[in-house]
Amino acid sequence: MTFPRRPEVRQDPVSQRWTIIAPERGSRPGAVVRAIPPALVERDDCPFCAGRETMTPPEVYARRPPGSQPNRPDWRVRAIPNRFPAVRPDVVPGHDEIDGFTHVAGSGWHELILESPEHVVSLTDVSAEQAAEAGLAYRDRFRFVRHDGRSAVALLFKNVGAAAGASVEHTHAQLIALPLVPTFLAEELRSTAAYRTRQGSCLFCDLIERETAGGRLVDQTERFAAFVPYAARVPYEVWVVPLRHAAHFDSCDDDESLALGQFLRSVLMRIERVAHRPAYNLVWHTAPFDTASDGAYHWHIEMVPRTTTQAGFEWGTGFAINPLPPEEAADRLRSAWEESP
Amino acid sequence: MTFPRRPEVRQDPVSQRWTIIAPERGSRPGAVVRAIPPALVERDDCPFCAGRETMTPPEVYARRPPGSQPNRPDWRVRAIPNRFPAVRPDVVPGHDEIDGFTHVAGSGWHELILESPEHVVSLTDVSAEQAAEAGLAYRDRFRFVRHDGRSAVALLFKNVGAAAGASVEHTHAQLIALPLVPTFLAEELRSTAAYRTRQGSCLFCDLIERETAGGRLVDQTERFAAFVPYAARVPYEVWVVPLRHAAHFDSCDDDESLALGQFLRSVLMRIERVAHRPAYNLVWHTAPFDTASDGAYHWHIEMVPRTTTQAGFEWGTGFAINPLPPEEAADRLRSAWEESP
Repeated sequence: MTFPRRPEVRQDPVSQRWTIIAPERGSRPGAVVRAIPPALVERDDCPFCAGRETMTPPEVYARRPPGSQPNRPDWRVRAIPNRFPAVRPDVVPGHDEIDGFTHVAGSGWHELILESPEHVVSLTDVSAEQAAEAGLAYRDRFRFVRHDGRSAVALLFKNVGAAAGASVEHTHAQLIALPLVPTFLAEELRSTAAYRTRQGSCLFCDLIERETAGGRLVDQTERFAAFVPYAARVPYEVWVVPLRHAAHFDSCDDDESLALGQFLRSVLMRIERVAHRPAYNLVWHTAPFDTASDGAYHWHIEMVPRTTTQAGFEWGTGFAINPLPPEEAADRLRSAWEESP
Repeated sequence: MTFPRRPEVRQDPVSQRWTIIAPERGSRPGAVVRAIPPALVERDDCPFCAGRETMTPPEVYARRPPGSQPNRPDWRVRAIPNRFPAVRPDVVPGHDEIDGFTHVAGSGWHELILESPEHVVSLTDVSAEQAAEAGLAYRDRFRFVRHDGRSAVALLFKNVGAAAGASVEHTHAQLIALPLVPTFLAEELRSTAAYRTRQGSCLFCDLIERETAGGRLVDQTERFAAFVPYAARVPYEVWVVPLRHAAHFDSCDDDESLALGQFLRSVLMRIERVAHRPAYNLVWHTAPFDTASDGAYHWHIEMVPRTTTQAGFEWGTGFAINPLPPEEAADRLRSAWEESP
């Protein structure tokens, strides 16, 4: 397989954003991966480890053995309110315009989902069973926020490694529920609705085929596909997309949720092997809680290893510069287990 | 003056993007500024220092004493092609659609403007005269790309400090000229055009007044204003806006260009003092080379200190989370010289 060796500007069909694929940038000085540091915090200083439950706010959800009590150390997965919330359930929802400036009250939920009672830092550091159970917990917390009814949309994401914005190293996901739809999601809702009007089909259902034909498929099971998107913004960016068309992540049944957790862990293992365990973000993209985009939108997860630094150019333009052709990234990720260590 | 202490989601009137102002986030562990490291590279290893001109591609522009020759060490400001370009002038312009994916050839310019012959890392490390001359060089290189005629738009930016994406520490700006208009600029062109249709005036001309009334002005001269924008995305973000309405940065005459360089240095000194010399980006926002947006758009410069890490939430949503209320940031920047060291 040959890969582009000249600069090429690619448009992402979902977000409509552009990425400059610039293979020559890969050889510049300082183009290094920012890795996840090994676990540094002593277990006794980490508020997220089993046995330190009194150091966190009381749990709002946990997966525990039958008969176990809340906030006892025998949990497997645990959800707690964020002590430093970006938005809060006790803020009265509202919207105001003052002197021509618009603002919305910061009402919502901000909680943490701890995927392991042990002090580990990446989702690949837990067992497949534990990752599966995390998948179930993610889905359950989405359902909780939907049933609460106060938020327009919920977002789930993971920051792993300081370079990816993690301020606590113990593996955890964050759920933020917001009163308004994020800019990037609004753009995706628009472009998928336009695609459906034009083509009569779901952009993501079609993308799975097109990315496979384009040589960018990384892995596939009976439920999920993982591919490097055509206009990947950073080396080894991967999207995980369910094969079953669904706009809402929380439509997953138990089996799908368990399989998702395992599949995420397995794809991350490929990324960590090939990209030398980089810091990374996982970001869930799922439709707002209403049903307006049910036919056109398709939930998915973006995996973004921090293999490059967002500099002034990316900040100022919304363009990314990716030194690794996506086809080459997919090729390396597919053969991750064939390479010598 | 009192500042908001509860989460509040603010909309930027220019980009239409949202920022969550979340004062409680400021106290979380790990919420630290990433500083510019002191100069580490030995002078003899730095290709950008005077005396090492043969280590770079031949210069395309320089400010030198009368009678001096190109690529000799007596320059004051020097522009060179980037050895690791994101786009290249020898790529044939073009546009293609294959299997439903759109791409554009990566044709354009990518050059570096070295603002000092000495090995220093920030624009505040040069004299006011040197900064003024850099302002002139920036303007001149924009004019060069416009006259070349092959690009739709040019972008100028500075990355200072590794956390801001700098791979070479010697102070320099980058000019990238592109065949298509960046996503974020397109959004600004749309929103300023809509504002002009609705209000009959320029959004930025009006903003200067509104930001001043809102207590967010940082500094003002007879030519430029600096303010913290209403929906600032990070602590101590500052916008520098010319008081004279103009869509194109390269419309600056010599006096304005010189004054700009000095003003940028002086505002950056405030940021460095208050935020403990953080890594930062400067990003020029200026209209495409055509005249379509002349009435509605207003060129300006965004200063973005890297005082927070872009994590999964910001990456996935386009929302920012800023723990410092913009009014409080402006207050501290205004009184930067009154504080004890």
